[in-house]
Amino acid sequence: MIDTPSLVDQYCHGVLRTELGLGTFEAHLGRTAGPPAPGTTFFDTQTGFAVRRWCPPLLGLEPHCPPAHYLARRRELGVLESGRRLLRATGISTYLVDTGLPGDLTGPPEIAAAGMADAHEIVRLELLAEQVADTSGTVDGFLANLAEAVHGAAGSAVAFASMAGARHGTALAPEPPGPGEVRGATGRWLAGRPVGGPLDDPVLLRHLLWIAVASGRPLQLHVGVGDPLLLTDFAAATAGLGTALVLLHGYPYHRHAAHLASVFPHVYADVGPALAHTGAGAAAVLAEILEHAPFGKLLFSSGARGLPELHVVGAQTFREALGRVLSGWVADGAWCRTDAERVAGMIAADNARRVYRLTC
Amino acid sequence: MIDTPSLVDQYCHGVLRTELGLGTFEAHLGRTAGPPAPGTTFFDTQTGFAVRRWCPPLLGLEPHCPPAHYLARRRELGVLESGRRLLRATGISTYLVDTGLPGDLTGPPEIAAAGMADAHEIVRLELLAEQVADTSGTVDGFLANLAEAVHGAAGSAVAFASMAGARHGTALAPEPPGPGEVRGATGRWLAGRPVGGPLDDPVLLRHLLWIAVASGRPLQLHVGVGDPLLLTDFAAATAGLGTALVLLHGYPYHRHAAHLASVFPHVYADVGPALAHTGAGAAAVLAEILEHAPFGKLLFSSGARGLPELHVVGAQTFREALGRVLSGWVADGAWCRTDAERVAGMIAADNARRVYRLTC
Amino acid sequence: MIDTPSLVDQYCHGVLRTELGLGTFEAHLGRTAGPPAPGTTFFDTQTGFAVRRWCPPLLGLEPHCPPAHYLARRRELGVLESGRRLLRATGISTYLVDTGLPGDLTGPPEIAAAGMADAHEIVRLELLAEQVADTSGTVDGFLANLAEAVHGAAGSAVAFASMAGARHGTALAPEPPGPGEVRGATGRWLAGRPVGGPLDDPVLLRHLLWIAVASGRPLQLHVGVGDPLLLTDFAAATAGLGTALVLLHGYPYHRHAAHLASVFPHVYADVGPALAHTGAGAAAVLAEILEHAPFGKLLFSSGARGLPELHVVGAQTFREALGRVLSGWVADGAWCRTDAERVAGMIAADNARRVYRLTC
Repeated sequence: MIDTPSLVDQYCHGVLRTELGLGTFEAHLGRTAGPPAPGTTFFDTQTGFAVRRWCPPLLGLEPHCPPAHYLARRRELGVLESGRRLLRATGISTYLVDTGLPGDLTGPPEIAAAGMADAHEIVRLELLAEQVADTSGTVDGFLANLAEAVHGAAGSAVAFASMAGARHGTALAPEPPGPGEVRGATGRWLAGRPVGGPLDDPVLLRHLLWIAVASGRPLQLHVGVGDPLLLTDFAAATAGLGTALVLLHGYPYHRHAAHLASVFPHVYADVGPALAHTGAGAAAVLAEILEHAPFGKLLFSSGARGLPELHVVGAQTFREALGRVLSGWVADGAWCRTDAERVAGMIAADNARRVYRLTC
Repeated sequence: MIDTPSLVDQYCHGVLRTELGLGTFEAHLGRTAGPPAPGTTFFDTQTGFAVRRWCPPLLGLEPHCPPAHYLARRRELGVLESGRRLLRATGISTYLVDTGLPGDLTGPPEIAAAGMADAHEIVRLELLAEQVADTSGTVDGFLANLAEAVHGAAGSAVAFASMAGARHGTALAPEPPGPGEVRGATGRWLAGRPVGGPLDDPVLLRHLLWIAVASGRPLQLHVGVGDPLLLTDFAAATAGLGTALVLLHGYPYHRHAAHLASVFPHVYADVGPALAHTGAGAAAVLAEILEHAPFGKLLFSSGARGLPELHVVGAQTFREALGRVLSGWVADGAWCRTDAERVAGMIAADNARRVYRLTC
Repeated sequence: MIDTPSLVDQYCHGVLRTELGLGTFEAHLGRTAGPPAPGTTFFDTQTGFAVRRWCPPLLGLEPHCPPAHYLARRRELGVLESGRRLLRATGISTYLVDTGLPGDLTGPPEIAAAGMADAHEIVRLELLAEQVADTSGTVDGFLANLAEAVHGAAGSAVAFASMAGARHGTALAPEPPGPGEVRGATGRWLAGRPVGGPLDDPVLLRHLLWIAVASGRPLQLHVGVGDPLLLTDFAAATAGLGTALVLLHGYPYHRHAAHLASVFPHVYADVGPALAHTGAGAAAVLAEILEHAPFGKLLFSSGARGLPELHVVGAQTFREALGRVLSGWVADGAWCRTDAERVAGMIAADNARRVYRLTC
């Protein structure tokens, strides 16, 4: 079996600080904010089954035990102690944490402490712009402060992340908008915006992406469930500037994302949630991602949010899928063992260390 | 091996009443009305091979025997007796039958009798509207009769089915059309329509879908070979109304259909023809469908039409694919056996019983 | 294990005549003209690993030996001798060679001699039109010469190939353009064109496709990475004319291409580069192609270009994937051995012999 001793989780969120009941825990297993369909439960999903497979043993229970038993044991230990036990069992040595989600989630220092690991911040561009808007009075002030905020964040964060592709279609106009266009859009957006209002203007989003690209920090783009090949023009426009683009998610278009990573030197593909969400089916999905992507262009992540159980599921599902796929190819004689171990290390950690210039 | 004792076939058609020669039988194995390419035969397809695998033993022959032998034996037994033997070997205990196809096909009572099973009717909306148009003289008369016909059908049928998504693109305008728009479209359509002419007006089709949604009966939508994610807006518009949407077919976009079922509480996905048509490859397709769909949102069907052999292939291919995939996951330790058996029963029958409110 | 004794490579290019260093060799393993990303190499791809698996033993080295060792041995033998050893080990008995690529590549006679095989020419339509434009002074002259050139090429070539679908979107307007439209487009294109300038006018490309369709020779269409279902209208418009359309490439839309081949009698699908580029993952891709395509509609190719190593990888990857997939289905009882061997022979060579009317 191919082993992956240590992981860099290149994209995740913090965990909740409050105790959870069965219903609130279940809600975090679904794909949406709403309840499951009548007569069904989100525990009956690959994510639910994967949680029941990997997590109960970490809290001293049998794998696949009923959800109610697991939740009772979790409350018995307390949210802090169960979080510690879970995170320390992931094998993740470095967490890159997108801090731009609402809700009472732990930040990088707390995750680092709970998981006995390193943690760095990923700054979400839209949130940064909204915070700047909350404190800027004029168009000129906003634009100057925005440039400065991105520049400042680039000094401390390891990467930027944006939802622009997922929210406004991946068919982003590829070129940066002109100064007049940006000023006009800013004026209209600021004028109509209540305090805390979201950044949803497509011109401003493009402006923001291009400021981030200019910073040189890797830019993580959520592609949602759209075809990442629609990002081809944006990728072509940003080629040769020295900034890496990392495509997040991508399932069910993960093959397309991997293909894009094979075409553009600066495009990388995330292999995280595509595996974490597919549980027992993850090896097949990983094998598909490995069809076209150069092995130096793939990055592990858990994509976890809210529950430390999801960090466990992300790490264990990845580790097992990778071991299964690569060991199979070695057994077939298609790959040699040395290569397989080297590629496992690249996807698990080394590619991320290079792309994000991590020193550990 | 995981077993599935009894199936509810949530979408199929009747079988032909006439004896078939080699050529007419073969024509039902193809994807189109036309002949196969010169030098090729539709028996050389996954469907053809699956028929030759599963059906000859049910008529006392060796599996994979030549098509001519099989057809000779079929004629020897007669269309009625061979139909009985085939349908009774499917393990299907309830058939939901779309009666809206042209041709001399058996209806629900005959299928029930031949298969020693229950059978219920699915009413195809377009055919219903065309029948109403044949007997309505005015726009007002048509619209009133249409509403009444849908209401009446909802009293006896278990579900409605529509081809609107497959024929007019799955990018349906999501909202119901306004009364003036509907009256205008109706007038134009009735004026230009010969008796028996098909319903192809997109405004009227949307109107029809919304009347059906209002009835509360599950609405089955053929998505053709288009991307079901284009139905996202229609799904969003119909959420919370209490009516289930069931996406039919979907291959090669079955992962997208499954994903949509994970996002909207009222959206369900069919796992039928995607398996029946892919024969030896069905386990891989089923595993893909199981990646994102909550297990309570998947429904077996055969999608069979014309030949009872296709009901057999639909049922056996599903049963074997499900057994293979779930047993594999149990063997790997990813799932426990109890869960696997429960999920098998859900997809095979229990989900359909709940969605269509079947009492057996 | 299912064996495939002899292959017809229905689409490939010639090989380079010059000695290659490590860097120039590596460049031919990538998907683009540019260099790999900093810190990565194109040897770390499925193609690179497949070359290191299959080729070193043919030159007397261990499989998976380091690239530098392999290149040293290749130079020691010389480009001619290593080319001969590689091509003769492919098991390819007939090469169909697209001669329309730039660069110093060997033509069909040289490939035939090096590989001890037959070779025939595929004429690339765009290059033919550009050559005609270089020697035609007027619109009328160009159009007459173009018709004659296509007619002449149809007499000696086995097929035509076009990049129109890949370059201008597969959503080609389906109908042939009218004479006035063609004359207008020709005038504008010739007037603005430097000598050697590429054919990029969509009207002229459509005109060219329709002249080629009229010749009766199979027309190979590169579909790039776009959805081949967008070619549905063009396929419908050309149905019944007696000319075969062969969809080249298609990954990651290979299932869609296979589906199109199941719907239109005159549409065929290539199974070449989708396998050659995915190396250890090829069996899964081939199984997907075999889900919907009638077995008489699939054609092997290597898609190789520049390096004889890529002809080896194309042939060996196909052979192993086919053997693995079909043997597995025979072992499961899904297919019988006789059928599996027959289908293997069809895809490997017999379908191509029939479609291209090859006599050997």
